[in-house]
Amino acid sequence: MKKVKIGIAGLGRLGKVHAQNIAYKIPNAELTAACSIVPAELEYAQKELGISAVYSDYKEMLAKADIDAVAIVTTSSEHCWQIEAALDAGKHVFSEKPLGTDLEQCRKAEAAVERHPDLTFMLGFMRRYDKSYAYAKKKIEEGAIGTPYLVKATGIDPEALVEGAIRFAKTSGGIFLDMAIHDIDLMRWFLGSEATEVYAMGATFKHPEFQAAGDDETGVAVYKFENGAMGMIHVGRTAPHGYHVETEIVGTEGSIRISAVPEKNQARIYGPGGVLTECVGSFPERFEEAYLVEMAEFVDCVCQGRKPGVSVYDGTKSTAVGYATTEAWRTGKPVKIG
Amino acid sequence: MKKVKIGIAGLGRLGKVHAQNIAYKIPNAELTAACSIVPAELEYAQKELGISAVYSDYKEMLAKADIDAVAIVTTSSEHCWQIEAALDAGKHVFSEKPLGTDLEQCRKAEAAVERHPDLTFMLGFMRRYDKSYAYAKKKIEEGAIGTPYLVKATGIDPEALVEGAIRFAKTSGGIFLDMAIHDIDLMRWFLGSEATEVYAMGATFKHPEFQAAGDDETGVAVYKFENGAMGMIHVGRTAPHGYHVETEIVGTEGSIRISAVPEKNQARIYGPGGVLTECVGSFPERFEEAYLVEMAEFVDCVCQGRKPGVSVYDGTKSTAVGYATTEAWRTGKPVKIG
Amino acid sequence: MKKVKIGIAGLGRLGKVHAQNIAYKIPNAELTAACSIVPAELEYAQKELGISAVYSDYKEMLAKADIDAVAIVTTSSEHCWQIEAALDAGKHVFSEKPLGTDLEQCRKAEAAVERHPDLTFMLGFMRRYDKSYAYAKKKIEEGAIGTPYLVKATGIDPEALVEGAIRFAKTSGGIFLDMAIHDIDLMRWFLGSEATEVYAMGATFKHPEFQAAGDDETGVAVYKFENGAMGMIHVGRTAPHGYHVETEIVGTEGSIRISAVPEKNQARIYGPGGVLTECVGSFPERFEEAYLVEMAEFVDCVCQGRKPGVSVYDGTKSTAVGYATTEAWRTGKPVKIG
Amino acid sequence: MKKVKIGIAGLGRLGKVHAQNIAYKIPNAELTAACSIVPAELEYAQKELGISAVYSDYKEMLAKADIDAVAIVTTSSEHCWQIEAALDAGKHVFSEKPLGTDLEQCRKAEAAVERHPDLTFMLGFMRRYDKSYAYAKKKIEEGAIGTPYLVKATGIDPEALVEGAIRFAKTSGGIFLDMAIHDIDLMRWFLGSEATEVYAMGATFKHPEFQAAGDDETGVAVYKFENGAMGMIHVGRTAPHGYHVETEIVGTEGSIRISAVPEKNQARIYGPGGVLTECVGSFPERFEEAYLVEMAEFVDCVCQGRKPGVSVYDGTKSTAVGYATTEAWRTGKPVKIG
Repeated sequence: MKKVKIGIAGLGRLGKVHAQNIAYKIPNAELTAACSIVPAELEYAQKELGISAVYSDYKEMLAKADIDAVAIVTTSSEHCWQIEAALDAGKHVFSEKPLGTDLEQCRKAEAAVERHPDLTFMLGFMRRYDKSYAYAKKKIEEGAIGTPYLVKATGIDPEALVEGAIRFAKTSGGIFLDMAIHDIDLMRWFLGSEATEVYAMGATFKHPEFQAAGDDETGVAVYKFENGAMGMIHVGRTAPHGYHVETEIVGTEGSIRISAVPEKNQARIYGPGGVLTECVGSFPERFEEAYLVEMAEFVDCVCQGRKPGVSVYDGTKSTAVGYATTEAWRTGKPVKIG
Repeated sequence: MKKVKIGIAGLGRLGKVHAQNIAYKIPNAELTAACSIVPAELEYAQKELGISAVYSDYKEMLAKADIDAVAIVTTSSEHCWQIEAALDAGKHVFSEKPLGTDLEQCRKAEAAVERHPDLTFMLGFMRRYDKSYAYAKKKIEEGAIGTPYLVKATGIDPEALVEGAIRFAKTSGGIFLDMAIHDIDLMRWFLGSEATEVYAMGATFKHPEFQAAGDDETGVAVYKFENGAMGMIHVGRTAPHGYHVETEIVGTEGSIRISAVPEKNQARIYGPGGVLTECVGSFPERFEEAYLVEMAEFVDCVCQGRKPGVSVYDGTKSTAVGYATTEAWRTGKPVKIG
Repeated sequence: MKKVKIGIAGLGRLGKVHAQNIAYKIPNAELTAACSIVPAELEYAQKELGISAVYSDYKEMLAKADIDAVAIVTTSSEHCWQIEAALDAGKHVFSEKPLGTDLEQCRKAEAAVERHPDLTFMLGFMRRYDKSYAYAKKKIEEGAIGTPYLVKATGIDPEALVEGAIRFAKTSGGIFLDMAIHDIDLMRWFLGSEATEVYAMGATFKHPEFQAAGDDETGVAVYKFENGAMGMIHVGRTAPHGYHVETEIVGTEGSIRISAVPEKNQARIYGPGGVLTECVGSFPERFEEAYLVEMAEFVDCVCQGRKPGVSVYDGTKSTAVGYATTEAWRTGKPVKIG
Repeated sequence: MKKVKIGIAGLGRLGKVHAQNIAYKIPNAELTAACSIVPAELEYAQKELGISAVYSDYKEMLAKADIDAVAIVTTSSEHCWQIEAALDAGKHVFSEKPLGTDLEQCRKAEAAVERHPDLTFMLGFMRRYDKSYAYAKKKIEEGAIGTPYLVKATGIDPEALVEGAIRFAKTSGGIFLDMAIHDIDLMRWFLGSEATEVYAMGATFKHPEFQAAGDDETGVAVYKFENGAMGMIHVGRTAPHGYHVETEIVGTEGSIRISAVPEKNQARIYGPGGVLTECVGSFPERFEEAYLVEMAEFVDCVCQGRKPGVSVYDGTKSTAVGYATTEAWRTGKPVKIG
């Protein structure tokens, strides 16, 4: 079995997750290079992952490292040019979401992908690879709920991590671009249709810092889709019970609801206040397995010359919807999409 | 203990529920008269409830029957004038929701209530008297979830009863007036604020008859409130699993969610497909106890000269929001309220 | 409709529940007399229930009151002779469980019932009339779980009420007689067979007062049945989360589990510790509706000359099993029954 | 980082799980040899795992292979001598449960472990490494439920796999030795005490083949422990809904219940019959992650010279309790242990 040699770009919190999955948990992958502008991250790569080929310059890694593919886990604004450069250097590419931070970038990335039809490109919409979401998709394809016509998505970060969100409130692009991209992708995926109009609003009741920064703590949006279906999104940053990601797909013959209680594990405590279910505390905890499955899928696609289920166009379209949602939120008016 | 003598107007499905509660289950109430334009219903009153004073004319009942109060469970379009007539005849009034079918009617009912400050008037927003909703309200008042700022409400009638809904699609006033009035009242109640703007949309994927009648099978709406809070409503008519009423109140320090699974009882069946929870089949099953508690509260208010928690203004305001939602749905544009 | 006139004996906590149900909530019943050795209870009957015919002597009530039936809610040791006296006086009888406190008494009650085949006798195994238990029974009769062969029953009183249990520990007859009689009846009912052997044990870890009084805080027992089926019982007095009654019936094709979480209502609180379900606090709260349904069934049986589902023999047999369980617990040896 | 080189003995269903974990998912482990008496398994090792050093003779592997440790996943009756031989050959040992099939064997294994205090020995009670069980243990150690005094354990294999169980019914040693060893270990672990007496019974209602083979389809047992605590076990082979492993630990201040619904994932289907939770289908699905965590712990123990939480004595004691339970079941009498 020939292993796919991968270089990772970015070794922050999520970068470390991907790096360890590639290095240790995917049989047909090998982590052979790492790149970061943060010296401590390169030290981590050398000491913890045993990688000697470390680079502070991304282009240098592309030029010199012994790699078949790159995994891009850098700041969102760097994704598109790094994707383009890697593909042009003949490397397969896995990139974290979002594809880019503006649509022009996204189009360039699309063009690069189209220029290299022989190379594998995959975008990290990892929720699609979560056991529960993949099961829901399979059930829907089997006809379990008839025709899906409404997706209700909730994504709330834990209050425990709110300080980080406050710190980045000015530069995050606003709550919808920051928080809703996965939900937008899931709506499109489950409904099999594209959004045509959005109306949105926000509120800030707990941390005025968000509004001071021109952002909101909580956002709500509704969508119309080409095929007549609808979507509802509720995103926020202050869930006291943990990291709350919940999705319901409503169809003509039934519904599937995922994670109404974002349970940490299968233990329930019967104690003085009642019966308590503890909840997951963060997205790496909730989607630990999905991150692994998604990267394994990328590597398998490279090995087998298959195209992954998530294309570059999913990235552009979800970004476009994110921008439209943000415009609707800022203007208070419905916004047409596409 | 002096009993409150009540005459009931309307003995359809829900009228019978109220009649039996008054007749048999509320110690300090007595059902002494009944009125209906349907002969079979008067026969029911005589034979099943043992009431001799039956009337086919509402005004005649008011004039002749030995009653302290009336319970109005007639067609929605009759509510307002019947309220007015009863109050002017010196009777306490319980009226089923909605208060009226247009705002002009509602204002007249308001005026009648104001003319008779000594008489008790109560509107049948019975969900407020459901054990779970009342508990949620109490918890919120105790501060359990901080400041509530978002209500997410779902109300879906069972597919099993869809034929009736199809039959009345042309005359129902549209899905939001027909289905959302309770959810609108609950949003106002839990948030302690009035809606100022609404945006809405609908879809019909299962029964084209709804769209043919100018209605929709499913409706979605979002609301802004005076105090900055928000609301999301999803109403429908095709729940395959039963009668689905679910409400979540999101606050700064926590959330309360009611009936995510509208369980029929506490038995769970572990069988070939997995673990199954059967669900309630209809609103009388789900709110059986709430209908009793609400009527008992009305009777207690009459006895004690207290004002019920639900006022005539709740009826007008919820109706106004219902109309605005309907306009938003029909025009596809956000609509200002009030 | 002729109403059944009932005299109640005993107006303690549970007596009051029955009295109010009879007086106010059962259309074809009337509470016309009350008897108690506690003056305050008779005062309650007069003032709160408006009953003028009150008695401090049970036999006097039987002789003088205008009653068709009696509801016996007195101390367990009085049940049997009161049943006998009432039947011999020509009254229908509803008696709270247990039938009696020794088997000799039970046999006398059986004989009295047999002497009066025209009179209705019903024993208060109210769990059979709980919505969830009745549903489970119906499902089992419909074949939903094949042949039932194992019942696992749990019944734990709330820690909040433990002081009362400690006070009566010396005279209660031990935890199995005090706590397990409902579970024993349910095992027999669901399995459709009689217990032939029992093995039992107990433990006291929280309140040494129980062991000091010759009792135990928690008891565990296993049973063999005539038809080869089995039973497991866990009873206790120290549930911190509320009143925990849970029952599972295991069959060849599936299982039904009732009240794994003894939820207070359908609201769930998403708060700092996770997702919390509050629980019922006591048996009157958990079985409020069952007490009403059971009494209504008794009254209907009287009216229609029907025999209730719970016979006097159910009382004797459950008592016999309770005694055998107690002997097994005290001796540490398996005990044959019957 | 030096990797621990491991040779695996046995590549059946569970052997393959361990082999893949060692080969691909544990950074500091390496699968360098494999041994099996089944030629197809050795072919699997060569082709799928890329292992050239394969052996049909266990002792030959010990003598010749480049290994630091062995993972024994052979037939239960081979465990003990293989443990002894490996330790005497200077290898660290991971052995699947049960330790042995009779107590004499177990004592020999104990002696071997004691002879080699410098070598790591670990027994595969993998449930202790399951996320939910480990969490429960941690909570208990933190005092969340006070003093634990009762463990209620249920373990039921899926009806879907019953044919295999029927095939081995004659040689399995009976349902308690075959099915209850994990539950016995968990009782001991959670209670921190040893069982002193057991009473047991069984039943067969669905597949008479079990009784024909001298076995039972379902078994029930109750235990007394040295410290006064108690245990209840229910094992079976015919769960229609999937693989049902459920455990409750009852303490003086609360309880923890694990997997009351053995959910497959977090999706719930709202469909015609109600709300359905699909369940896990087998032990490898339920404990997939626990098998990995346990092996990683073994490898870490080897690397760091630590002793694992599960000792050889846990194996002997659980086996002794399993034998006593089997004797109690066969004789119908309580059996003293130890």
